[in-house]
Amino acid sequence: MSVVVQKYGGSSVATIEKIKNVAQTLIKRSKEGNQLVVVVSAMGDTTDDLISLAKQISSNPDKRELDALISTGEMVSAALLAMALKEQGYDSVSYTAYQIGMKTSGQHGKSLIDDMDGVKISESLKDGKIVIIAGFQGINEDGDITTLGRGGSDTTAVAIAVKLTGICEIYTDVDGIYSVDPRKYKEARKLMVIDYEEMLELASLGAQVMHSRSIELGQKYRIPIYVGLSNSDIRGTIIEEVTEMNMESKPVTGIATSDEDVAVTLKEISADINILSSLFETIAARKINIDMISQTAPINGGVNVSFTIPKDDLNECMEIIKNYAEAQNIFIDTDITKFSMVGIGMKTTSGVAAKMFRLFSENNIEVKMITTSEIRITCAIKQEDKIKAIEIVAKEFNL
Amino acid sequence: MSVVVQKYGGSSVATIEKIKNVAQTLIKRSKEGNQLVVVVSAMGDTTDDLISLAKQISSNPDKRELDALISTGEMVSAALLAMALKEQGYDSVSYTAYQIGMKTSGQHGKSLIDDMDGVKISESLKDGKIVIIAGFQGINEDGDITTLGRGGSDTTAVAIAVKLTGICEIYTDVDGIYSVDPRKYKEARKLMVIDYEEMLELASLGAQVMHSRSIELGQKYRIPIYVGLSNSDIRGTIIEEVTEMNMESKPVTGIATSDEDVAVTLKEISADINILSSLFETIAARKINIDMISQTAPINGGVNVSFTIPKDDLNECMEIIKNYAEAQNIFIDTDITKFSMVGIGMKTTSGVAAKMFRLFSENNIEVKMITTSEIRITCAIKQEDKIKAIEIVAKEFNL
Repeated sequence: MSVVVQKYGGSSVATIEKIKNVAQTLIKRSKEGNQLVVVVSAMGDTTDDLISLAKQISSNPDKRELDALISTGEMVSAALLAMALKEQGYDSVSYTAYQIGMKTSGQHGKSLIDDMDGVKISESLKDGKIVIIAGFQGINEDGDITTLGRGGSDTTAVAIAVKLTGICEIYTDVDGIYSVDPRKYKEARKLMVIDYEEMLELASLGAQVMHSRSIELGQKYRIPIYVGLSNSDIRGTIIEEVTEMNMESKPVTGIATSDEDVAVTLKEISADINILSSLFETIAARKINIDMISQTAPINGGVNVSFTIPKDDLNECMEIIKNYAEAQNIFIDTDITKFSMVGIGMKTTSGVAAKMFRLFSENNIEVKMITTSEIRITCAIKQEDKIKAIEIVAKEFNL
Repeated sequence: MSVVVQKYGGSSVATIEKIKNVAQTLIKRSKEGNQLVVVVSAMGDTTDDLISLAKQISSNPDKRELDALISTGEMVSAALLAMALKEQGYDSVSYTAYQIGMKTSGQHGKSLIDDMDGVKISESLKDGKIVIIAGFQGINEDGDITTLGRGGSDTTAVAIAVKLTGICEIYTDVDGIYSVDPRKYKEARKLMVIDYEEMLELASLGAQVMHSRSIELGQKYRIPIYVGLSNSDIRGTIIEEVTEMNMESKPVTGIATSDEDVAVTLKEISADINILSSLFETIAARKINIDMISQTAPINGGVNVSFTIPKDDLNECMEIIKNYAEAQNIFIDTDITKFSMVGIGMKTTSGVAAKMFRLFSENNIEVKMITTSEIRITCAIKQEDKIKAIEIVAKEFNL
C-alpha cells in the first residue's frame, strides 16, 4: 500500500463543515487503498487572530513565545479532523510536532526542518489509522516550539513524504499552477507539470502558491508534489523533475511579475571592485535584498551601476548609498515592474531573449534593466506596460 | 529565595488587559525576592468554546482528541503571559506539559499526575526567569496529551509546589473559603484557615472553589495552599493541617448543601448480605455514585434500605433496582437537600450531632436520613427547610 501525504490549507479547514468535508474526502481516498498522512494548517484566519492577540501585548512580541502561541492553531485543526474521522467510523489519530519528533533549527518564526521520527506515524498507519499532523511547527534542540514561516505546512508535508518515501499532495484554494497569474491574464493555461526549478523561480518571483522550502525539499529528494483544489475532481499540477519525457517542449513555462521594487542608479561611481563590493556587502548586512544588478563598462575609471531593492527598504538603503556617491549622481526610479519569463526549456532553446526583445521593441515597451539565470529572463519595465507585456509574451509562447 | 507557585484561573486571564495586570502583579512579587512559577488556566470561556467546536463534530467526541484540542487553551494563555512579562522587561519563559515532563495516567479527561521533571523549571528559575506553565494538561505513557478535569490547573500548581518544595497560591474570582456559601447566607464568615480534610469534605459536598485532587495532593505532601482573589490585597484563606495551634477552637468550620440527589427506599428487601452487596455492586458498576445509605434492623429476615443517588442517574438506577425489589416496595423521594456540617473539631468535640438534632427539632425541620464521618455530619432534609437550617446552624456554631 502506498503512503500518500496530503496537506490541507487554512481555507480548506476554515469551518467545522469544511473539516467534515475533508474527512469524507479522506475516507474515500482511504477506501481506494492508500495509507494517508494528512498535514493541516490552522483554521481560516486563526493564525492572524493569534498574532493580533500578541500584537496587543507587544509591537514586537518575543519570538519564542510567539511560536508557542501560534503553533496552537494547527493543533486545534488536527484534533478536530481526527475527531471528525472517528465520528464517521474511521480510526484516526492526531500528532503534534513533538509527538513525531519534528526537529528544527534556526530562528524562531522561520525554522528549518532537520529531521523527524517516522516510527510513530508508520506504526499508526500499520494499525489502519488515518494520521493527522499539525503542520507548520517543530521542536528545536532546546525542546522549544518553533514554526516554519508562512506556508510552512507545505514543507511539513513534503518532509513527511521524504521520510516515508510517499507521494505528496498539497490541497489549497487554487486549482493548480498557471503559466501566468489568471487575475492578470484571463487566457492563462493551467500547467499539468512544472519542474521544481521553474516552480522555485516562480515562487521567488511572487507566485505565492507554495512555500519555497517545500519545493527545494521535494527537489532534493525527488518527491513529486501535486498541487490542486481540495474536495474536487479538477486535475491540478504536478511539480516534479521535468525530463524530455514529460517536458511540454516549450522554452517558456510561466510568467511572473512584481511591482514591489524600485531601481537605484549610481552614476560615475569608482570602478574599483573593492568599493562596489563594500557597498553591496553593507546593504546585504542590513538584510536588504538586492535583486537585479547591471553595470556599464568603465570609462575614465568610473562606472554606472543600477540595481533593484524592495520599495520598503529604500529609506534605509539611501543612508548607506550616501556614503558611496554624491547626491547629484543618485537616481531613483519607482516606476518599475519586474517581468520574468521562466522555463526549464531555456536551457536547450536559444533565442528566447532575442524573441522577447523583438516583441517588446515592436510594441514600444522600454526595457530598463535585464538579468538572466539558466532558466529565467527578468526585465525591468514601466508599470504601465505590464499587462501589454504579459499578453504579447503569453500569446507568443502559447502560455 | 523561596519558590512560590501561583495559579491564575480563567477569569483572571480572560482578556489581554487582565493578562497585563497579572504580569504587573508578578513583577511586584518577584521584586520582593520570590522565585515565581505561575500556572495558568485558559482565557475566560476558551475551554467551553473549544468543547463547543468538538460538539459540532460529535455528541461524544473521541476523548484522546478532545484532550489534544482543549489543552491548547492553556498553551495560548501561558505564551501570552510570558510575552507580557518580557514586554515589561522581565525575563520569562512558558512551558507546556510535555516540556516539563508532566506525566499522567488514567483516563483522558480526568487523568492523574504521576510525576514531573522539575529540572527545566529549576534551571529557568536559577536564570532569573519567571516561569509560566500551561495548567490542566499532562502527557501519558503513550506520549498522548491528557487533561486533568475541570479545575485541574489547581492540581498542576500543587504538584509543582510539591516537586519544588515551594508554597502554593491559588488566585481566582472568589476572595477565599467561606463557612457557608455567601449566596445562601449573607452573614457567612470568611475562614482564615481551613484543614485539608474539611476542605475536601466541603469540595465533595458541592463547594466548587477548588479541584479536590489538588487538596488531596496538598494534604499528602503537607503543602499549604492559599486561596484568594487575584490582583488584590484582600486576605484569602489558607488550606493547611489544622493543629491545636492554629485551630479556631470550634467544632464546626463550614456548611455545604446540595439539591442534586434523590432518595431511594426499598422496603422489606431480604436481609441476606449477598443480595444487598450485589445490588450496590451492580449500581456501582454503572458508575452511579451512591452516597447516604441507611438500613433498619432486620424483622422476619427483611430490612428497609434507603440511599441517595444523583438525580440524573435515577432512570438508569431504577432498571437495576427492579431486579431486587417489587415495584410496590420501591419509594422515590425527590424532595431532598443534603445538609452537611464539616469540622475537624468534631474529632474532639462531642455532642455536635445532638445539638443539631435539638435545633432541627425545635424548628420543625424533619431529618429524613443521616450519615456521619469523623469530621462530617450529613442529613437529608426537605428542600423548603434548607435556608432555615443554614441560618440556625450558622448562628448556633458562629459560622
